[in-house]
Amino acid sequence: MNSETQTRLRHAVDDLFERQTEFLSELVAFPSTRGQEQAAQDFMARAFEERGLATDHWTIDIDDIRGMPGFSPVVGDYEDAVNVVGAHRARSGKGRSLILNGHMDVVPEGPHDMWDTPPYEPRLDDGWMYGRGAGDMKAGLASNLFALDALRACGLAPAADVFVQSVVEEECTGNGALACLQRGYRADAALIPEPFAESLVMAQVGVMWFQVHLRGLPTHVAYAGSGSNAIEAALPLIAALHEMEARWNADQAKPAHYDHVHHPLNLNVGKIQGGDWTSSVPAWCVFDVRMGLYPGQDMAAARADIEATLNNAARQSDFLRNNMPEITYNGFMAEGYALADDTGETARQAIATLEQAHGAITGQALDKVAITATTDARFFGLYADTPALVYGPRAEAIHGFNERVDLESMRRVTQATALFIANWCGVEPV
Amino acid sequence: MNSETQTRLRHAVDDLFERQTEFLSELVAFPSTRGQEQAAQDFMARAFEERGLATDHWTIDIDDIRGMPGFSPVVGDYEDAVNVVGAHRARSGKGRSLILNGHMDVVPEGPHDMWDTPPYEPRLDDGWMYGRGAGDMKAGLASNLFALDALRACGLAPAADVFVQSVVEEECTGNGALACLQRGYRADAALIPEPFAESLVMAQVGVMWFQVHLRGLPTHVAYAGSGSNAIEAALPLIAALHEMEARWNADQAKPAHYDHVHHPLNLNVGKIQGGDWTSSVPAWCVFDVRMGLYPGQDMAAARADIEATLNNAARQSDFLRNNMPEITYNGFMAEGYALADDTGETARQAIATLEQAHGAITGQALDKVAITATTDARFFGLYADTPALVYGPRAEAIHGFNERVDLESMRRVTQATALFIANWCGVEPV
Repeated sequence: MNSETQTRLRHAVDDLFERQTEFLSELVAFPSTRGQEQAAQDFMARAFEERGLATDHWTIDIDDIRGMPGFSPVVGDYEDAVNVVGAHRARSGKGRSLILNGHMDVVPEGPHDMWDTPPYEPRLDDGWMYGRGAGDMKAGLASNLFALDALRACGLAPAADVFVQSVVEEECTGNGALACLQRGYRADAALIPEPFAESLVMAQVGVMWFQVHLRGLPTHVAYAGSGSNAIEAALPLIAALHEMEARWNADQAKPAHYDHVHHPLNLNVGKIQGGDWTSSVPAWCVFDVRMGLYPGQDMAAARADIEATLNNAARQSDFLRNNMPEITYNGFMAEGYALADDTGETARQAIATLEQAHGAITGQALDKVAITATTDARFFGLYADTPALVYGPRAEAIHGFNERVDLESMRRVTQATALFIANWCGVEPV
Repeated sequence: MNSETQTRLRHAVDDLFERQTEFLSELVAFPSTRGQEQAAQDFMARAFEERGLATDHWTIDIDDIRGMPGFSPVVGDYEDAVNVVGAHRARSGKGRSLILNGHMDVVPEGPHDMWDTPPYEPRLDDGWMYGRGAGDMKAGLASNLFALDALRACGLAPAADVFVQSVVEEECTGNGALACLQRGYRADAALIPEPFAESLVMAQVGVMWFQVHLRGLPTHVAYAGSGSNAIEAALPLIAALHEMEARWNADQAKPAHYDHVHHPLNLNVGKIQGGDWTSSVPAWCVFDVRMGLYPGQDMAAARADIEATLNNAARQSDFLRNNMPEITYNGFMAEGYALADDTGETARQAIATLEQAHGAITGQALDKVAITATTDARFFGLYADTPALVYGPRAEAIHGFNERVDLESMRRVTQATALFIANWCGVEPV
């Protein structure tokens, strides 16, 4: 690509940027928490169709993916889980194909009174757009689409197939991205503009979700101290899990990618519920835990360690010994993934192409990071031999209150993405 | 009352006992948890009307009782809170009047799979009736009514006014019994057949319910340890409350009535809820606590101690110091009550009359106990100068699974109640 094309693409993103910002605002206005993404996915499908992309809009069938590597267990069916893919089919097919992936599901916004303004009424202030999902990752979805728009505005189309994916389930299982694999979408590389501040993610942790169910024999509180209280029985188990967390984070346990990360594997007690009546000793308690894992860490061994930790702690308690916790898995069973470990030529070229695009737009070298979260990149990298580049805009307070995305950062990422597409896929006339 | 009348009353209870057991079974079949008592109260009202009692069936108006001593704070209104009173008005009025009180509300049954048989499908086995509320306290409601039936079957009626009360809200505030006071129901004594195994309750604790609300600043778990986790922030507060509990239960703090009770004041974390998403550091957590108080213990001082305990513990935590807990009161604000402290002549006579009735039926002396729970007795004793006798059948697992009541014990209590009514109120021909 010559520098004139580069400049034209950059300006095309600028010219479209007001529309891109409006598009993002429309996306953020959908309260697309898990199970509630259908309207947002319909909106996305219309956007694909308006652009002439061949649009595939389907409900995930759990039986289609259950046996695949990387599948995460879920409770219930997927009647409410809808993926959308828009396919650009190149006439020449001379370039390298590409998947542009993003997820539509957002995490719950929490109590609205802790937001300065309502989470699904996007607001612009001082260069930021506020709203649940603005950063994680609707700005990325907008960036993917408007990077292609910029090419079209320049009279160009990718010279290889490009699949624009808007998936669900990224925040709990990744089964949405997995269903895209199952449906046959493959390409030479994947780009996922998750909000990691214009850095390239070289390693991501795995994530496991588990639930601990405690049951007890309740009585009227008049006849019981705290010994058989299913809520308080959770406390030593949580403490034991934190000891395990410390063990996993010890220096000698860290792989090289995480050498310089202080505490890569976070354990989070994310939800708890227990008891039915204030004056009854609670008969039940269930808490939900998220635990990180290193790339390469064996999942079965990790599960065994978690279960042994909980069971050993339970055996220390007179109450729990006779009411052993039940451990269930409903959500992430996600391996870690390190793009850095992909020594193939395709990965090398993809990274170099992104470095070039990033440099051309920002004038800076591309930062490379190891992150303490997971993304859908693992499906492409681990199960489809496809290097997956996680590279997206700067955002703050993702999963928190007053989540926001830096709009100038989204602009730069869109520009870099347009250049990346043009260089990776090559171009042909529209 | 001569011994022939005594024998006839006793036999009358026996003759009616199959019907009484059926009546109890019908009562237990109503899932009359708080807010769901209307159908059961309608059933009770019909039972009063069939017996010719003047039936008063009303919805509690919170504004009528809010300013009264003994009122407990509640969230929301009382549109679903219905009391029923059936009044027997004596022709002669020569005897001492009586309130026969019981409550229709039951505590939640908890997970059904922890019951051997469904909680609202009463089951008879080996002399026990199983079901939520069978003991606490539908057997008492049945006993009150069938004791009066036994008199009628003998051609007798109480020679003083008797008010049979079926109230709600006993398990959370006592505002149902309070509303009966407000409506003007007064008598010389009250009898409440709560399930304390045919003992007479001489002292009962007070109970306070409070909620602790914790808020935090959540983030994606990738960026946070447990420091700002609103669920885990609850743990040191719960520990501090148990230290307070130990202080209140120390020997030097115990009043005489509780000298021989090992641990009179139980603190119970009865409910907890927090967090919205397993991979988000939870932004909120709320837990519900029940704490006992001694008769005579100052309520305002107790509240101040609870709040200081929570606030001091919160100030130890970097996170909580900037996110101080909010403490709210929604439920019991119940003082302790000791019948033993009522040195009046009426109380002395009421206790003696019950002792005599109990002895005649059981051949045993009446056990006198201090209990670690509260009952509605406090309203009569503390706020209406009316000695309140808590005396009811033996039950097990109240507030637990497989709650059950001893039917022979209910029979004896019904017989003793019939004798008590006849002796306390005197009798006149029907």
